[in-house]
Amino acid sequence: MAAHFADRLAALVEERQSQIVLGLDPDPAALWPVALRDEPGAPADPARATARAVARHCRAAIEAGERSCVAVKLQSACFERLGAPGWEVLAETVGTVRDRGLLAIVDAKRGDVPVTARAYAQALLGETPGPYGPVAGLAADAVTANPLFGRDALEPLVDAAAAAGSGCFVLVRTSNPGAAQIQDRPEGAPLHEALARLVDELGAGSVGASGLSAVGAVTAATRSDLLSRLRELMPRAIFLLPGVGAQGGSVAELGPAFEPHPAAGLVTASRSIVDAYRERGGDPGAAAAAAAEELRAAAWALAS
Amino acid sequence: MAAHFADRLAALVEERQSQIVLGLDPDPAALWPVALRDEPGAPADPARATARAVARHCRAAIEAGERSCVAVKLQSACFERLGAPGWEVLAETVGTVRDRGLLAIVDAKRGDVPVTARAYAQALLGETPGPYGPVAGLAADAVTANPLFGRDALEPLVDAAAAAGSGCFVLVRTSNPGAAQIQDRPEGAPLHEALARLVDELGAGSVGASGLSAVGAVTAATRSDLLSRLRELMPRAIFLLPGVGAQGGSVAELGPAFEPHPAAGLVTASRSIVDAYRERGGDPGAAAAAAAEELRAAAWALAS
Repeated sequence: MAAHFADRLAALVEERQSQIVLGLDPDPAALWPVALRDEPGAPADPARATARAVARHCRAAIEAGERSCVAVKLQSACFERLGAPGWEVLAETVGTVRDRGLLAIVDAKRGDVPVTARAYAQALLGETPGPYGPVAGLAADAVTANPLFGRDALEPLVDAAAAAGSGCFVLVRTSNPGAAQIQDRPEGAPLHEALARLVDELGAGSVGASGLSAVGAVTAATRSDLLSRLRELMPRAIFLLPGVGAQGGSVAELGPAFEPHPAAGLVTASRSIVDAYRERGGDPGAAAAAAAEELRAAAWALAS
Repeated sequence: MAAHFADRLAALVEERQSQIVLGLDPDPAALWPVALRDEPGAPADPARATARAVARHCRAAIEAGERSCVAVKLQSACFERLGAPGWEVLAETVGTVRDRGLLAIVDAKRGDVPVTARAYAQALLGETPGPYGPVAGLAADAVTANPLFGRDALEPLVDAAAAAGSGCFVLVRTSNPGAAQIQDRPEGAPLHEALARLVDELGAGSVGASGLSAVGAVTAATRSDLLSRLRELMPRAIFLLPGVGAQGGSVAELGPAFEPHPAAGLVTASRSIVDAYRERGGDPGAAAAAAAEELRAAAWALAS
C-alpha cells in the first residue's frame, strides 16, 4: 500500500518549508534558450524536435526551481498539442519530477461519465489491462479533475488516486474572469459552494495521519475573498491555489488556505517563475530560482 | 476559408438520411477478435502492440458502421490511456474517419483557463507554432468542451473551430446519474439552463447557411424530458445526444432535438453498435452494421 498523498505532501512541506508548486506550461515559441541549443535547424519531424526542446526546457526549469518547491504541476494541454511526442515528453517529465524527489501534479482537468472517468484514471494514475499485458499510465502523484459531471463521475478518479497513494484536486473556483458567470451564479447558493460540499464529502473517506484528505480543491488565488468560506466548507482539503502573479493573485491574501496545516495550501506559480528572466534579466535558471525562493519565503511566513 | 461545420454536417445528414454518430470508446480488454489476429503473443512493447490492436478495431468498426452514420466520435480517454502510441492511433483514426467521408468528433471534453484553452484548441483543431516550424494538431471536425470555466474559456475553442470550419459541442446536460446533483440543482434556474444560454450566445456569431450554428450542445438522451426547454433556449444549436442504448435513452423520445432541421440532432451510440454482436451473436462487423442501420432508420423516421 502506497503512503497517503496528503501525508507524503505534509512531510515534504515541513522538510522544505515550502508550499510552492512550480507550474510548467511550456510554450514552444517561448522556450528557454538552453532548450534550443542541441537542435539543428529545420529537422525532418518538427513535432518530435519541438517535444525534445520542451523536455529540455522543463528539465532546466525543474532544476532551477526545485530547491524552493514541493511539487511541479504539468499543464497537460501544452504537451498534448505536440501530439504523440508531446505525450511521451509529458510521461518523461513526470519521471524527472519524481526522480528529483518532488511530487508530479498532472493538470489535466479531466471529467466525464463514470466509464470514461475510469479510462482517464487508468491514463493518469493507474494502468490499463490489455491483450498483451498491462499498459502503464503516467503515475502522477496528483491530478486535477473537473466536477461538472457530479459525484459518480469523480469517484473513479478519487478511488484510483487513493489506491495509488496519489491525490485528486477537484475544481471548485477557477482563476479566470469568466468563471464568475458559472461558478458564482447568484441564484441560490453559488455553484462553487455546492462543489466545495462535494469535495468535502468525497474526501471524508481518505483522510491521512496529517488530518488532510487525498481529495483536494483547486480554488483561485485571484478570489482570496472566498477562501475563508471555502475553508469552512472544506476543513480537510488541500487547496491548490492558481492565479498568483501573472493573473493578479497575491500570496499575502492566502492565509485561510493554510489554517488547518502548513501543507493545506499549495501555491502554484508558472509564468512568474519560468518567465522571471524576461523582467529581471540575466540567466533564466537563476531568475527562476530567485523568483521561486521569494515566493516560498512569502508563503512560509504566512503559514507558520 | 473552410466550409462551415453545420453546413457540412447538414449536407451529409441529407445525403445519408442519417443522424447517427458511431461512438468509439475502445476497451483494450474487449476488442473485436479481428483486431488481435496479426499480433504475436507477449510483444516487447505492450503499449504499442495494444495501440495497434485498437487501431485495427477502430478501422473495422468504422467500416462496419459507416454506411448508416454521418460521424464518428472518438473518446479521447480510451486512446490516452495507451500513452504516446495511443495518441498516435487517435490521430490516425481521425484520418481514417475523414478519409472515408465522415466527420471526426474528438470527444475530449476539455476546459481550462483561456491561455490553456488556446493550447487545447491547438492540439485538437489547429497547429502550434514552434522553433522548428508548426506542429499539426488532430484536425478534428468537431470537439466537445466543458463549460465550467465560463465564456472566456470557451471562446478560444469556439474561435479555433470556426476558423477551421469545425464545430464545438459544449456540455449542457450530461448523461450520467450524478449529473443531476450539479447540472440540475434546484436553487434558482438549473445550471443546465445557464449553460444553454451560454451556448446560444456563443453560437450567435457562427450560424451557417443551414440556419445551424457551429457551436452545439451535448445534452443527454437519458433526459429527453429536458429537450423541449433546451431547444427553446438553443434554437440554432446542433444537439449531440449521448446515452441511447446502454445508458437507457431511447431514440423515440428525441423529437424536439430535430425540430429546426434534420441535422439539428445527432444520436451518438457506442456500445450498442460496437458490442451488438455480444447480444446478437455472429460477426461483430455484421452485427454493428445492422445495429447502426436500425438506429439510423428510427432517427430518420422521427426527423422527417
